[in-house]
This record gives sequence, structure tokens and C-alpha cells, in this order.
Amino acid sequence: MGAVSYVGNRELAVRDGERRAPGDGEVEIAVAYTGICGTDLHILHGAMDARVSLPAVLGHEMSGTVSRVGPGVDGIAVGDGVTVMPLDWCGSCPACAAGNEHVCHNLDFLGIDSPGSMQSHWVAPARVVVPLPEGIALEAAALAEPAAVAVHDVRRAGLRAGERALVVGGGPIGLLIALVATAAGADVVVLEPSEGRREQGRALGLRVEDPAGAAELVEEWTEGAGAPVAFEVSGAVAGLETAIQSLAVRGRLVVVAIHSAPPPVNLFRVFWRELTLIGARVYEREDFEEALRLLASGAVPADSLVTSVRPLEQAAAAFEALERGSELKVLIDCRDVFA
Amino acid sequence: MGAVSYVGNRELAVRDGERRAPGDGEVEIAVAYTGICGTDLHILHGAMDARVSLPAVLGHEMSGTVSRVGPGVDGIAVGDGVTVMPLDWCGSCPACAAGNEHVCHNLDFLGIDSPGSMQSHWVAPARVVVPLPEGIALEAAALAEPAAVAVHDVRRAGLRAGERALVVGGGPIGLLIALVATAAGADVVVLEPSEGRREQGRALGLRVEDPAGAAELVEEWTEGAGAPVAFEVSGAVAGLETAIQSLAVRGRLVVVAIHSAPPPVNLFRVFWRELTLIGARVYEREDFEEALRLLASGAVPADSLVTSVRPLEQAAAAFEALERGSELKVLIDCRDVFA
Repeated sequence: MGAVSYVGNRELAVRDGERRAPGDGEVEIAVAYTGICGTDLHILHGAMDARVSLPAVLGHEMSGTVSRVGPGVDGIAVGDGVTVMPLDWCGSCPACAAGNEHVCHNLDFLGIDSPGSMQSHWVAPARVVVPLPEGIALEAAALAEPAAVAVHDVRRAGLRAGERALVVGGGPIGLLIALVATAAGADVVVLEPSEGRREQGRALGLRVEDPAGAAELVEEWTEGAGAPVAFEVSGAVAGLETAIQSLAVRGRLVVVAIHSAPPPVNLFRVFWRELTLIGARVYEREDFEEALRLLASGAVPADSLVTSVRPLEQAAAAFEALERGSELKVLIDCRDVFA
Repeated sequence: MGAVSYVGNRELAVRDGERRAPGDGEVEIAVAYTGICGTDLHILHGAMDARVSLPAVLGHEMSGTVSRVGPGVDGIAVGDGVTVMPLDWCGSCPACAAGNEHVCHNLDFLGIDSPGSMQSHWVAPARVVVPLPEGIALEAAALAEPAAVAVHDVRRAGLRAGERALVVGGGPIGLLIALVATAAGADVVVLEPSEGRREQGRALGLRVEDPAGAAELVEEWTEGAGAPVAFEVSGAVAGLETAIQSLAVRGRLVVVAIHSAPPPVNLFRVFWRELTLIGARVYEREDFEEALRLLASGAVPADSLVTSVRPLEQAAAAFEALERGSELKVLIDCRDVFA
């Protein structure tokens, strides 16, 4: 079977290997598609060398069909179409004890902390396998993970139908948040400095504007009140400031982008308008299930979001294409090339 | 009648003056006590010269007795014991339209934006007058305003009985928050670097510790989980970082201190633990009423918090004493010295 591994020194290797039999509570999945995430690019750049074990099989956005079922697994059968919520938890830390397994203190993020799905056959714990709804294509189901991020972010915002929501940053996650928020009945504006990305967003039917005119836009759009909800997805200090300045009294800002170094934050405005800043990380099972419903219904249009599908042996070229920035979502077709 | 005014150039003046008759919807209050707030010190230092109009009668923490009632005022009578919620609102901005008059876009903060209560007779809008409950001393009622700040902060945190709450900063507002949180049934620890302030807090029956040992303290106190609630009252970057590091997964941080310049904020930790940062400004009427109940019951012990009472003509000396840091709360006795 084939597997795409990060082998260090900014290199990927595609190699044949032995299939592992699923153990207690595990299933083996014949992987159909695995999406490439920004995190996979970070790993390839060496930015997560302290966390990954080499060779590291990448991939945590996937779909497939159950091929073998280990002992002690109920409710999952060979042939089932599935995706995987790539988070496994310890069950005994304070976060798990409080019911927040998705941010377990000892979280195992499959595809980062342990082998991922960019291989033709993948063994995963049955408890993180999520069955696919009727009628969803396997290409669409491979977007469940990034769509679940967006669903979680929208849920953390407490977004209500009819509310205005500003999305600062129009990359793949920003656009997914905008699509999910629109499906939830919000009036959405995306701010994105790159004209190419603005065009990608507009092709999805979204309103995407240049952040250079943000202050006037928000003033006019919200009749001077500011937006009740914003999502900071830019990862830039300027984007964060724009999001904070755009909020209404008692506005809620979900901080989606990962700011590795502590950025300056306009806490005076947070005080003055009694804003709330909300941290959001990954997703919970209900977010995954909602993401699959939105993909199945077309509210999140997988066909438009997936800009190319490449075979496993072209993984390196696919990573390079994504890096160049013209692609939105690239899938690796993982069906067994060595079979 | 006497009035304490900031006249610019770091100077206060105590002057006689004419009483103004209350107009439509106004009452005149014979002021008993006015507390000195940190904001009054800021004004005296010239830090708010762009906002105040000279000469500026200071004071927004007060108690007194209604001495005259203007036309069109119902439910308030001469002789009533009262305090004033020193916020007047426009009624037509987006914040007012959303029911958030306390953070009105055109807020008039009495004692900053318009004349305050550090005078023997003060005319205020009847709609911001709050009647005193039975049995409360006028000295205690003069603490309603800072106590209402603390009540508002605790309410913004959504603090529940039995929760652990960390208060970072043990000045007057930090101690009031700790007292209000304790009254709400929380298990409270205050962190304060000054030994003198730690002693003041302990004299109130609070647990006050040196922030140098914060990490170990929180680890032991919360059995490794972190605190569900923290209040940042230090105004220092280090205090803000300690508060964020001390929180449990899904912990809530109320940012009480005013950070004029945007400080670096550990948004990685906000993401990693899905924290919520909550802005809090002033108070609403229900906070004022709850503050008066807590002062009347002794849950907020005014006798211990008020460390000196000075007559109006000694206002300058009272400001200097507060500046030296050995006082906790200083009241000005405003009863008419020129009558």
C-alpha cells in the first residue's frame, strides 16, 4: 500500500508499506481522499519538527470506506462510508473530566501526533470514526474536517440568524466560515487583501471586500452600530485590529487564526465596548456531523471548493501547487496504487 | 456652598459657589460623602485634560439626601437617602437602542464629562438617582459606585457558587471583586505583589498571595485544572499573562483594568484552552442595587474599606494621602462648610 510521509529536511516520500491489522477498538479504512491542510504545509516546512515523529504519515482531512473491523467494535461494518474526527483523548485529564475531550490536555491529533490518513489503508480508533450521511460523495466528505472547524467557530460565536458577521481573512477556513455562517442565516462580509482570493470567494457567492475600506464599509453596512460578530482568520496584527474595531457594543470576536507570538491587542476597545474575545480550537463530534450535513446539502459546495485532485504518487507536486496559492483545496486520491 | 474643582496644572481648588436650582427631571442632593477614585487622581495628573472642562468639579462615588426636587420628577422626595449611578445616556445611539445605555456611544459620565459630587449640593438627573435601602449608613452608601463596578465584573464573568476565581491585583477594585465573588459563593484567591496591600486584603478576611508563586499555587489549588474564572485588575502585562496562564480549559477572564496601550496578549493560550476574554465597563442599574444590598448586609464591609474621612476643605491633603498608597478608600465629607 502507498503512504505519503514527511521525512524531514522539507521532503516528502511516497512509499509502499505493509498494512497493519486493526486492534481492539480499531477499524481499518480504505482511504478514498485526503485533503492537504495548512498544517501539513507547516509540518513540511519543519515548523513542527519538535512535535512529529519521522517518518510522519501526514493527513487528517479524509474520507473512505471501512475495510476491516477490529475486535470490540460495534455499529461499524466493512463497506461503510466514513470520515474520521482526528482527535483522540486520554479520558482522565481535567479537560476530559469537564466534558471537553476535544481540547484534552493530552490530545492525540491523528496526522500530527500519530500517523495520518495520507495512505491507502489507515487504522484509526473506532470511537473517532464518523459515518457518512446518505448521498454524500467521497470527495465532499473529505472536506468534513475543515468544514467542522468552521462549524465549531460559528457555534462558539453563538451566531444567530439575521445577525451580521464579519470574516477577516478569505483563505480556505475564512471562506468555509463565511459559507457556514451564511447557511446559519447570517448577513456575511469577508475582508481579504488578495484580489485573487477575493475572486475565489465571490465565485462561491460570497460578498468579499478589500480590508482597506473596512471602517467605511462597516459603518455603512451596520448603520453605525458595528458588527455583532467577527471572526479573525487572518493571523495578522492588522486583521485582528480591524476585527476589534469593527465590532458593536457587546460584540463577539472568535479568534480562529493561530497567533504563535502574543500580538498587541486593543484591550481599550474591548473595555470600551464590552467586547468578548472567544478562543476556538478544532471541533466536537456535533460539529463534524453538522459539517457533513452541510456538505451533503450543498450549503458548503465541495465541487467549487476542491480545485484539484491528484494521485498519491504526485503528493509532492500537489503540496507545491497549494503553496503557490492559486489552489483552494487540493485532495490526494489515496486509492491503492500499489495494490 | 463648597466645591472641589480641578483647575488644571495639577491643582485642586476648594471654592464657595451658588447653588443651582434643579430643572425639569432633576433633583438637588445635599451630598454627605464623596469617595476619591483612581480616575480622580488621573484627572488631577492632567491625564484627562482633553476630556474635562475646567474648572471641573470632581467626584462620582457619593451618598446624600435629596434637598430639592425639580418639575416632572416622580418617586423621589426631599429627605430621601440616595446615591447616584453617574452615567447619563443619549437614548438614540445603537448601544442605547440595544438596551446597553451604560455604554452609550455618547455617554455622559458625571464627575468626568460634567460636574461631579465633590460639592455640598449637587444637581443630577432624577433617572440616575438610586434610593438607599433601609439601614445603610451614608458612609457605606458612598461605596456603592466602586462596589457596583465589582458586581458588574462578577456578573460579566457568569460566576457560579462553588467556582474558583483568581483576582490578579489587590488594589481597591481587586479587593471589592474578591469580596463580591466571595459573597457569591466562589472560592477566591487574590494575587498582589505589594506586601502592604496583601495585608490590607487579609485584614478583610481574603486569601491574598504573592504572584511570584502563581503557577504552583494555581496548580495545587485547582488540582491541575486551572481556574474557571479570573479577573485581570493589575493593569500590568505580567498580570495579564498570569491571569491567562492560570485559566482552565474554557476559562473566562474578565479584563477589568484599563490597558490604554495595546498589550501583548497570549492568544495562543486563548486558542489552546478555548478561553474567553470579557470586556467590562462601569455597571448597570441592577449592579448598583446589588452593590447597595451587599453594603447594607456587611458582605462588603464599608467600615474596613474606608480608611479615612476628611472634610471638604482638606481635599488636596486627602488626594495626597491616597497617592501615597497607604489608604484604601478615602471619603470627602461634603456637608456644607460654607452654610
